[in-house]
Amino acid sequence: MIVPESPPLRIQGLRTPAALVDLRRLEANATRMARKASRLGVALRPHVKTHKCVEIGLIQSGGSPGPITVSTLAEARGFAHAGFRDITYAVPLPLPFLPDAAELGRRIRLNLLLDDEATLGSLEAFAEAQRMRFRAFLKVDCGYHRAGVDPQSDGALALARRLQASPGVEFLGILTHAGQSYACRSPEGARAVAEQERAVMDLFARQLRESGVRVESVSVGSTPTCCAAEGWAGVTEIRPGNYVFFDAFQAAIGSCEAEDALAFSVLATVIGHYPGRNELLLNAGALALSKDPGPVHVDPDCGFGGLYTAEGLPLPHLRLSSLSQEHGLIRGLAPIDYASLPVGSCLRVVPTHSCLAAACFDRYWVLVDGAVSEEWRRIGGW
Amino acid sequence: MIVPESPPLRIQGLRTPAALVDLRRLEANATRMARKASRLGVALRPHVKTHKCVEIGLIQSGGSPGPITVSTLAEARGFAHAGFRDITYAVPLPLPFLPDAAELGRRIRLNLLLDDEATLGSLEAFAEAQRMRFRAFLKVDCGYHRAGVDPQSDGALALARRLQASPGVEFLGILTHAGQSYACRSPEGARAVAEQERAVMDLFARQLRESGVRVESVSVGSTPTCCAAEGWAGVTEIRPGNYVFFDAFQAAIGSCEAEDALAFSVLATVIGHYPGRNELLLNAGALALSKDPGPVHVDPDCGFGGLYTAEGLPLPHLRLSSLSQEHGLIRGLAPIDYASLPVGSCLRVVPTHSCLAAACFDRYWVLVDGAVSEEWRRIGGW
Repeated sequence: MIVPESPPLRIQGLRTPAALVDLRRLEANATRMARKASRLGVALRPHVKTHKCVEIGLIQSGGSPGPITVSTLAEARGFAHAGFRDITYAVPLPLPFLPDAAELGRRIRLNLLLDDEATLGSLEAFAEAQRMRFRAFLKVDCGYHRAGVDPQSDGALALARRLQASPGVEFLGILTHAGQSYACRSPEGARAVAEQERAVMDLFARQLRESGVRVESVSVGSTPTCCAAEGWAGVTEIRPGNYVFFDAFQAAIGSCEAEDALAFSVLATVIGHYPGRNELLLNAGALALSKDPGPVHVDPDCGFGGLYTAEGLPLPHLRLSSLSQEHGLIRGLAPIDYASLPVGSCLRVVPTHSCLAAACFDRYWVLVDGAVSEEWRRIGGW
Repeated sequence: MIVPESPPLRIQGLRTPAALVDLRRLEANATRMARKASRLGVALRPHVKTHKCVEIGLIQSGGSPGPITVSTLAEARGFAHAGFRDITYAVPLPLPFLPDAAELGRRIRLNLLLDDEATLGSLEAFAEAQRMRFRAFLKVDCGYHRAGVDPQSDGALALARRLQASPGVEFLGILTHAGQSYACRSPEGARAVAEQERAVMDLFARQLRESGVRVESVSVGSTPTCCAAEGWAGVTEIRPGNYVFFDAFQAAIGSCEAEDALAFSVLATVIGHYPGRNELLLNAGALALSKDPGPVHVDPDCGFGGLYTAEGLPLPHLRLSSLSQEHGLIRGLAPIDYASLPVGSCLRVVPTHSCLAAACFDRYWVLVDGAVSEEWRRIGGW
């Protein structure tokens, strides 16, 4: 909705903690990734789990609903309601959700993923009973070792063949997520992981095709690898998510520039001065920022996010050193200038992990030229 | 509300992840702390930030609204709406919330806390302009070094004197939170912190009284210290919160017995089997459990919570080793018996930190004798 206040609401007028989105930076992030995908010949299917916000999904899709990726059926339903018609639910389907997936799958192209025979059997039995057909990717493990089949195992080929021949499930192709890219320390490291992700999937797709399995989509994606990759030969689509916001973690490993790309921040209020220990206190704790430890592999003393003035200027001499439920404790790396940060004034925190911090809120305040222009809702739950 | 299904809903029928409360354990935890407070001659003002649920607050208060502690004004408003009339907001008041605090303070006994002159000045100016009076504690630092005045500083006595003489603020007494108790490894350690917390406050109260400052309330509290303390001489009230749920952290440091007291858990579904690496995957990640690292100071390899069958039997050979946004990866410490945990079946996770995990949900499913008896809402936001 458009915020009714006129003149525009100033961010100092917001209740804190508040989730802020810098619209120009967000648009630039979205455009940069869309252009890269286009230039390198892959489709972009952004993962909306980072923001779970229809307005942002539309910006990522170029203005009208395009293909997206989600992490919950609640997101899928919300985006479907807003006109998105091609949605990949990129978590192995929990079987109790089968009826929900079927209901949604009758209305839109809902693409599931699976990596085991038992799930395929359940999908087939349900599809037969309901006289319908599911759509599914085979989930592949390209080295992250979370979900997915080992592409060089006998079971992987057997499962792909069963999918290909399934009466109840349309086989869409293969899909992976190189989450191991989050252990990188630099764009060079992420580029190597991106190449591994691409090569594993390209090889597996070729092997499947040689075995007579038709593989249409080859889907990859994580923000570090999508930012670092220099080519996607053999890949048909990418699914980055965090890139639209970025965060202190992505800046630390070089996925983005800290000063230009960080589109999400949390506004908080100074609630205490402790000059005796060169510290101050914010009213933003673990329930506004998450307890994600951040890029400790790059900087063990990184703290819980980058600190900025309410206007967005960096405060490099302050460190958000600890979080409890509703408190954030800031330590000065140099003597704190308390006069410039009076009790009651506001700061911005760029969190360690924007996907988790954004989940602490039910709405975003959209900033254009430092003023609040709109309020956007976020889809929660499962 | 009472769940309408008849016969009672089985937990296997819930959508996952789902927040479960074991009513008998919760009642026993509430009763145990209430009896201890009564026996040791202190008032109990439970901190409801752990659950933010009116029904649970009523159980803690013995059936009808009693004095409580909150961490947000949203909680204060929600509990006030349900009839609670004596509420301590135990975070230093963010000054932009002054009008909200004033509005609520006209309807109920809203007890604020402060630890600096600037906030007191703002309260006084607001009170004068609005012809009203606030109620406030002086927040004391008993060694946690988060918020509060150093009780042995000159500033502490000066601020207490100013509060005592304030026309706009009624001085209620002194209040502290021994959060350093979370660094303990045993009940003996927590008992020593409890004695430090008590002694610091008792001494400061005496010093204030000797200086002519009337100190009515001396308020302390954290779950580890309240569970471990053997006496509260000089203290008038305690404010534990987590004790009504407990969690894997509290069990690890000995605040409670793991098998009898853990009243909160998250129900999740098995979504993947990975026998090649002796792992399995749950659909509960950081957005259902939080990324709280847990009692790593007691067990560096503790993982992200204790694992139990859907019926509540411990699964000690499984470790919840990592969390991403919607995935929880379980590692077997012995070969996993996959047949007993088929894909689609449910497990329970007792999280590392129940205050943060509960905040991932908007409702609790209440279990009595293994069946779902009620659905209770949770107050979110600020």
